[in-house]
Amino acid sequence: MKISKIGQFALIDSIKRQNPSAGNDVVVSIGDDAAVIKNKTKGKYLLFTTDTLVEKTHFVLKYSTFFELGWKLLAVNISDIAAMGGIPKYALVTLGLTKDINIKDMNDLYSGIRSLAKKYGVEIIGGDTVTSKRALFFTLDLIGSAERPVKRTGAKPGDAIISIGSIGGSAVGLKNLRKYGRKALNIDRSNVKAHLTPSPMVKEGRLASKYATSMIDNSDGLARCLIEMFGSGKVGAKIYLDRLPIAKGATMKDAFDGGEDYNLILTVPKKTAKLIKNAIIIGEVTNSKKIFLVDRKGRISAMKAKGYEHF
Amino acid sequence: MKISKIGQFALIDSIKRQNPSAGNDVVVSIGDDAAVIKNKTKGKYLLFTTDTLVEKTHFVLKYSTFFELGWKLLAVNISDIAAMGGIPKYALVTLGLTKDINIKDMNDLYSGIRSLAKKYGVEIIGGDTVTSKRALFFTLDLIGSAERPVKRTGAKPGDAIISIGSIGGSAVGLKNLRKYGRKALNIDRSNVKAHLTPSPMVKEGRLASKYATSMIDNSDGLARCLIEMFGSGKVGAKIYLDRLPIAKGATMKDAFDGGEDYNLILTVPKKTAKLIKNAIIIGEVTNSKKIFLVDRKGRISAMKAKGYEHF
Repeated sequence: MKISKIGQFALIDSIKRQNPSAGNDVVVSIGDDAAVIKNKTKGKYLLFTTDTLVEKTHFVLKYSTFFELGWKLLAVNISDIAAMGGIPKYALVTLGLTKDINIKDMNDLYSGIRSLAKKYGVEIIGGDTVTSKRALFFTLDLIGSAERPVKRTGAKPGDAIISIGSIGGSAVGLKNLRKYGRKALNIDRSNVKAHLTPSPMVKEGRLASKYATSMIDNSDGLARCLIEMFGSGKVGAKIYLDRLPIAKGATMKDAFDGGEDYNLILTVPKKTAKLIKNAIIIGEVTNSKKIFLVDRKGRISAMKAKGYEHF
Repeated sequence: MKISKIGQFALIDSIKRQNPSAGNDVVVSIGDDAAVIKNKTKGKYLLFTTDTLVEKTHFVLKYSTFFELGWKLLAVNISDIAAMGGIPKYALVTLGLTKDINIKDMNDLYSGIRSLAKKYGVEIIGGDTVTSKRALFFTLDLIGSAERPVKRTGAKPGDAIISIGSIGGSAVGLKNLRKYGRKALNIDRSNVKAHLTPSPMVKEGRLASKYATSMIDNSDGLARCLIEMFGSGKVGAKIYLDRLPIAKGATMKDAFDGGEDYNLILTVPKKTAKLIKNAIIIGEVTNSKKIFLVDRKGRISAMKAKGYEHF
């Protein structure tokens, strides 16, 4: 059934039926002018983030199912909350739809969102549906909360630089999708899955927030992470290339310039590094105000790569 | 300067510089993984809404300046908060940009957003920028707060149905833009302005929320408002056509099917109707479970129009 047959309001009704509100903090959910949440906690911090997936920019329908797209749409937003040390809570979903889209596809998209939402305790409480002439786009807005939000900047000289999770796998997964189409899932399942349905690191981020002086999720490649964390000219970094947790089959270039890995990169005072679960120390924060890479032979070079540029 | 020349990260830097955070509740603003707001008030309600403007669906660049688009993008979201009886507070802005867009245009867009934001005390604290192959789109997410949020449903038989603000002007403004282009501003300024830069009714909605049993902002035409408020089969409505505050130059069809007026439609117990400022009583809530229109001769007919359908 095409959306142009049933219209926007019937689609919203169907979305509403499939996403009943469960939590009793949600006073008004999908279908009103705004969602309403009872504000129960004073003193905590609210987190507020948004991420958009655009057809042909962020996805092509040849490689992803709508279920996977829905999953990823929520995952990339949850990852932003995880990188602040927070817990995701409430989501709005905006559908930018072409007239020929099938209702079944939208149901699959929501089914993907809901699968991950259930896993992470997120409630979908509203959104918007609009017509887009040519390309699909999906926007998700997410509210979370944190007791100790951790910024991208704030690293201190002497801190250990840590990665939780491997780097470069998503770029390899995408390359394989381009080469083999959906068959890539049989050839290189782990990297392709990392690209299509990433798992955001909420627990890891939350635990790390006790000690972290700065934290970021790796959405645009390691190079971009390092620039965001150490590029302001206040501190520098030394990265030991042989310690990087490069994903199986990935190159150094995949790790630095690829992106969409959604591992966490963070800094902690050195003595607390061993308290972080699954932490891999990849470098240390310096006074040098530049980002240096150290290879296995101890040779040092300034980082040149810039990560994925969107325009 | 084209965006493809400076890239996404330079654009974000420029947006960040132009939108410094003012309120001390905002702990982390534009440029991090998520915005962070200190949660100061317990017991109040948080409101959470989003609206998107898509090129060629919601706007054409022939008729609107980027300043006006920015204004409208925020205005339609503020209007949703107003319709809940709330105050708007924090906004995220997502830019879906084609590669050939000019930085100056984005500055104008933000300048339009900021002008209205200042008027209403809204802070822009984050967002996302993405590439869109063909059409521009802009999404704004807005958080607000309310002490007594008012839903679309909740009207009681015997309540007065009220409009604050006139109806149909935006549709006339759009028609005139289509006919005369930007010259329409000289021919029919008030209706064209109502279409390009609507003024959301926050004060009015807030005052009304003390008494209102239901409220909605008129974004998709009066017919759609009435269906949302009285279409659930629990109550009905009688609308007196000769009492409708039809905008100058507008027809009944403009009022019922036009949309984008952003006046408020609400219901209140009859005896409190006179306490609502600038209230125009347009009908009453009934037990009949249908929406009836009463013309000036007292003839009654069931409402047929359905308001603006987006697909």
